[in-house]
Amino acid sequence: MAMAQIGATPNGGVRRLAASEADKAGRDLFSSWCEEAGCAVTADQIGNLFARREGRNKDAPPIVMGSHLDSQPTGGKFDGVYGVLAGLEVIRTLNDFHIETAAPIEVAVWMNEEGARFSPAMLGSGVFSGVFSLEYGLSRADESGVTLGDALVRNNLAGQLHARKTLGAHFEAHIEQGPVLENENKIIGVVTGVQGIKWFDATIKGAECHAGPTPMHLRIDPVQAVAPLLIKIFQLAEGNAPDARVTIGEIRSHPNSRNTVPGKITFSIDLRHPDSSVLAAMSRELEMLIQTESVAGCQFELNEIWHSPPVSFDAECIAAIRDAAEKTRQPYMEIVSGAGHDSVYLSRVTPTGMIFVPCKGGVSHNEAESADPDHLAAGCNVLLQAVLSRAGEYSANIDGR
Amino acid sequence: MAMAQIGATPNGGVRRLAASEADKAGRDLFSSWCEEAGCAVTADQIGNLFARREGRNKDAPPIVMGSHLDSQPTGGKFDGVYGVLAGLEVIRTLNDFHIETAAPIEVAVWMNEEGARFSPAMLGSGVFSGVFSLEYGLSRADESGVTLGDALVRNNLAGQLHARKTLGAHFEAHIEQGPVLENENKIIGVVTGVQGIKWFDATIKGAECHAGPTPMHLRIDPVQAVAPLLIKIFQLAEGNAPDARVTIGEIRSHPNSRNTVPGKITFSIDLRHPDSSVLAAMSRELEMLIQTESVAGCQFELNEIWHSPPVSFDAECIAAIRDAAEKTRQPYMEIVSGAGHDSVYLSRVTPTGMIFVPCKGGVSHNEAESADPDHLAAGCNVLLQAVLSRAGEYSANIDGR
Repeated sequence: MAMAQIGATPNGGVRRLAASEADKAGRDLFSSWCEEAGCAVTADQIGNLFARREGRNKDAPPIVMGSHLDSQPTGGKFDGVYGVLAGLEVIRTLNDFHIETAAPIEVAVWMNEEGARFSPAMLGSGVFSGVFSLEYGLSRADESGVTLGDALVRNNLAGQLHARKTLGAHFEAHIEQGPVLENENKIIGVVTGVQGIKWFDATIKGAECHAGPTPMHLRIDPVQAVAPLLIKIFQLAEGNAPDARVTIGEIRSHPNSRNTVPGKITFSIDLRHPDSSVLAAMSRELEMLIQTESVAGCQFELNEIWHSPPVSFDAECIAAIRDAAEKTRQPYMEIVSGAGHDSVYLSRVTPTGMIFVPCKGGVSHNEAESADPDHLAAGCNVLLQAVLSRAGEYSANIDGR
Repeated sequence: MAMAQIGATPNGGVRRLAASEADKAGRDLFSSWCEEAGCAVTADQIGNLFARREGRNKDAPPIVMGSHLDSQPTGGKFDGVYGVLAGLEVIRTLNDFHIETAAPIEVAVWMNEEGARFSPAMLGSGVFSGVFSLEYGLSRADESGVTLGDALVRNNLAGQLHARKTLGAHFEAHIEQGPVLENENKIIGVVTGVQGIKWFDATIKGAECHAGPTPMHLRIDPVQAVAPLLIKIFQLAEGNAPDARVTIGEIRSHPNSRNTVPGKITFSIDLRHPDSSVLAAMSRELEMLIQTESVAGCQFELNEIWHSPPVSFDAECIAAIRDAAEKTRQPYMEIVSGAGHDSVYLSRVTPTGMIFVPCKGGVSHNEAESADPDHLAAGCNVLLQAVLSRAGEYSANIDGR
């Protein structure tokens, strides 16, 4: 709640865009808390932040608990922030109980996860993982033309660290951002992977004409063409239930005038599935739909503009999280993440796992974002146990464990 | 073509917004031509312009040929302009053949027909016909806050004429703005009336959520609801063919984000029919559709925002135009106007008729607007004969008539 006061919005949300002054203030607050907890805080050249608690073996690859502190333009208190502060809470708990680990433990704050200010999303973890070059990351510009590189310099957010050392593992606690855990009465989601995503832009071209003088049989009306096509596109989800997701988020009419038959309808299609072969089949079905639809002379176009393949998290990390949920006696279920996270890119370079906790009504990217403190604590405890199982525990003084 | 040089656009169209400097220049050119043709030109307080050719009986109500010189922001050379210049050509022809009429003849230029700069459309003819008060008309403001009254003063467009005398009849020649005449190989459209129009705003509310984390069965997706509804709405046209028109010109998704299931879809519905009882029945069917549709928890709303009842033109004026088409041996057909025109308001206060000529591809409100000079001449001849039949001819010297 203290972190949520930085960039707080009137409606109870948070606006802390990546590499902004608010982001700097949030990171400074976080760094001060970490230093109070005895950690050394450093940054790399893309602005990722690392708070390190040494292990007995300083040369061992660190076990990292990472997420992000940047928010959507009208975001909530928990998205990303929870995972970072859960990591700090793990470190405080280790301190409280004088536990020394074999491997060092770090909390990572990944830069520009949301992609709300600088596109694409997950830039910091992407550069760290070698998905993007440092130069590419620094050159990304916001709406007003300010590059991430400029913003890092302006707010003194970049450090000297170059390409990173090997990690021992990456764990990320996060609110689910969906309704499944709440709906199933579970408190812990053991995330097995992340759905594959394909984004398409679709266009239906007709002939713009006046609503009054043009008889129906002389129209080439893309609205009449789009309606049955939308129904068929949504049937792709039914045909690949229950894991498939089909979303038409954007629809635009051109010129969007009340008394003009539109010359063009454009819309987006977002297809998701955790199995890459099913996602590919859905994509082919969509292309066939567009090819075979031909209503009243309209022309159909489909362009794939982005593809993020499905991710399967590390089997041992998944097992560590499942064991931790059982050990702490939390009701849990396996779940596939529908949204992208820093862990998607981290999973390419290190064993990775994610822990989901419920958020109220599944609402996220919204000022109304909320989560139950007991659920957040449960997620912290699972994170603690999972990290300990990977880091190795040298001295256990926790009563009753 | 000389008039189209005033406000000419690079793509061959015209931008001559109502009461602008370009409009003033166009009206001045028109007035100079009228004065060369021996007419007296006067303006009324809302900026309607009248070029008068006296008749033998100066006290008889004048026969008026009216349309407009203002254009859409990226309009064409013919919409409105044709009707005004056709009127001038009629007067020139009467001069050439030394024809004296019983009643005076006037060409009217109605102010702000398009409604593109000042809303609503047909302001000049509306004030003239008592549909709007003068004060209401003068107080209409454009996007930058300039009122029509201000613009008239600025460009010296208003005159002293108050409430108008009685008219003998109003004839308007106009391009069809639709594809029917071209499609039926006719050159003259004998316009019997104007379609009734009802405008609706429709809203489908669902629940905004993330495209990834939300399973299909937990969504309340307005896009899934709108598709079958659109199909049923277009069936209203099939059920009332061939005269019914159903247009969905505007569609918006909210928040219109690619990876968000929209919380809301809004769209417009434009229903048209020349028979008021059928239009009312279509409207009731639409309301029932919205009431009975209930898909996956979405909420439907429908608001009627405008109603323009059907117009039937004067039987004698229609007959005069039909007779003129036969006399001049032009292929003609009866047609209902789908668009509004100044004649809609004039028909409330005087016997009124309209003559349509084809425009290329039915295209209008577009820089590509085009018409065949032979068709335009044919329309002029029909206008001449129709006007003469109402004005009364005292001396006919036209060879071969």
